[in-house]
Amino acid sequence: MAGKLKIGKLVVIGVGLIGASFALALKRARAVRHVVGVGRTRRNLSAARRLKVIDEIQSDAGRAVRDADLVLLATPVGQMAAVMAAIAPHLPPHAVVTDGGSTKRDVLACARRFFPDARFRRFVPAHPISGTEKSGAAAGFPELYRDRCVILTPQPETDADALRLVKRAWTACGARVVTLDAEEHDGIFAAVSHLPHVVAFALVNSLARRRDAGRVLGFSGGGLQDTVRIAGSSPEMWADICVANRDVLLGALDDYEDALEEARAAIEQGDAEALKQLFESARTAREKWLLKKSAEPRG
Amino acid sequence: MAGKLKIGKLVVIGVGLIGASFALALKRARAVRHVVGVGRTRRNLSAARRLKVIDEIQSDAGRAVRDADLVLLATPVGQMAAVMAAIAPHLPPHAVVTDGGSTKRDVLACARRFFPDARFRRFVPAHPISGTEKSGAAAGFPELYRDRCVILTPQPETDADALRLVKRAWTACGARVVTLDAEEHDGIFAAVSHLPHVVAFALVNSLARRRDAGRVLGFSGGGLQDTVRIAGSSPEMWADICVANRDVLLGALDDYEDALEEARAAIEQGDAEALKQLFESARTAREKWLLKKSAEPRG
Repeated sequence: MAGKLKIGKLVVIGVGLIGASFALALKRARAVRHVVGVGRTRRNLSAARRLKVIDEIQSDAGRAVRDADLVLLATPVGQMAAVMAAIAPHLPPHAVVTDGGSTKRDVLACARRFFPDARFRRFVPAHPISGTEKSGAAAGFPELYRDRCVILTPQPETDADALRLVKRAWTACGARVVTLDAEEHDGIFAAVSHLPHVVAFALVNSLARRRDAGRVLGFSGGGLQDTVRIAGSSPEMWADICVANRDVLLGALDDYEDALEEARAAIEQGDAEALKQLFESARTAREKWLLKKSAEPRG
Repeated sequence: MAGKLKIGKLVVIGVGLIGASFALALKRARAVRHVVGVGRTRRNLSAARRLKVIDEIQSDAGRAVRDADLVLLATPVGQMAAVMAAIAPHLPPHAVVTDGGSTKRDVLACARRFFPDARFRRFVPAHPISGTEKSGAAAGFPELYRDRCVILTPQPETDADALRLVKRAWTACGARVVTLDAEEHDGIFAAVSHLPHVVAFALVNSLARRRDAGRVLGFSGGGLQDTVRIAGSSPEMWADICVANRDVLLGALDDYEDALEEARAAIEQGDAEALKQLFESARTAREKWLLKKSAEPRG
């Protein structure tokens, strides 16, 4: 870690909450000289430039990366293939590519497919465990990653210096970097992140479809509000994640549906004692988990 | 509403979050002279007295209510029958009884069963739409009901002056009082409150049962934490509520499981577009709901 991190040109492809916050955090750390934003909607890019998230707008991803030092792919994971195919022929040999995707096996498969071997070695898959239910460049803020965990899933062939650069960039954003196997990563996040999103979206849909939805929701309190906060997240991003990670997510859904059926059976049978025990075990597990998280915060 | 509300003796049966906060709020409003607490665990009652939530501990509910002016039943709803049976012979004719139960049809059925007609007329069913995931007297605080909604479900035979007293008491706690039909009340709260609790408890259980639960939960972020906050709620209280309201709750669970299956089918088929539309409709509904709530807050 000799000297201060200084990235000459950062290209952010997909200037949403994740990409914008990365750029802002590196700017605040004075770790980047020039930031180019690439995206699908001119309006969002213009907002990003106005908010000084990016310094320059480029509509063509291939042209944007030609003299890049670091490229962050921060699009929904469903677009990674197209973006990688578009930039692969234009990347200079030294450039390091990283991503912010919430699934890692699929992003790695895309990278293996579209990047030649020498290029693949300079691809460092990453997943910042941070976010809010908001989307778009205007939702970005430089503290998003402070004290949060960023998971890297480097491969055996990943260049050590590329890995080091990405680690330093995330560290400059205030994050703690953890390395995981891509398979384990996807299993973990199917359970603690993808499943809860599916649950929250489905819960809102079931309430919103009632004929008396307007009146009923008017009586809701903070409990429901917290439970479905993440149903405000980007539909496109989450649809892509769920499809990309579907094998393990379906397993997590199976487990959840089993737990739900158990509660349902106790309710049907009017068995308050059995239900109390189910709720008690959930409360105890939650308390243990929160205690552990407060003792050793990892984001 | 002539003059300032002054309750001589308030008896709180069940000095948990709801009962303790009611007593504290009335004390702060100087609307009560003496508060007696009745409960199952001496330890909790001692804490309540030490914290000046109550002025006196009574172990016998019947004896406690003998010269009561207002009695709040704030036990889990599963205990309402036993408590009503115990106090019915001892209540003075003028005393008004109210409750804080989250279900209203079952509490009303108990009251009809255990209170003679003249007594039933002075029973005013109430449900404060407020709470936290914490339980016990020590969790109580006088602001719990400020700007929150309290729902009353009076019956045709309810005495006007009893209803007025209960309205004034909740108003003195800072709450807004709304009147609803008991049946409609139970339908609404099955959807916006009871169902989300079942969902949150089941979600925690499905995660906690994994062999790798400790490691997996260590990687969770704020999303999961908010989604399952209410799984910290009192297991006994919520088991009672779910069983008491099971007919409508099972209907709400049906709707939810349908919505979940729809998402599951799209995930299984790898249909990101269909999934995106489901998530989009949830996000839109949530935004509309939040906008409406911020425009006309009702607790």
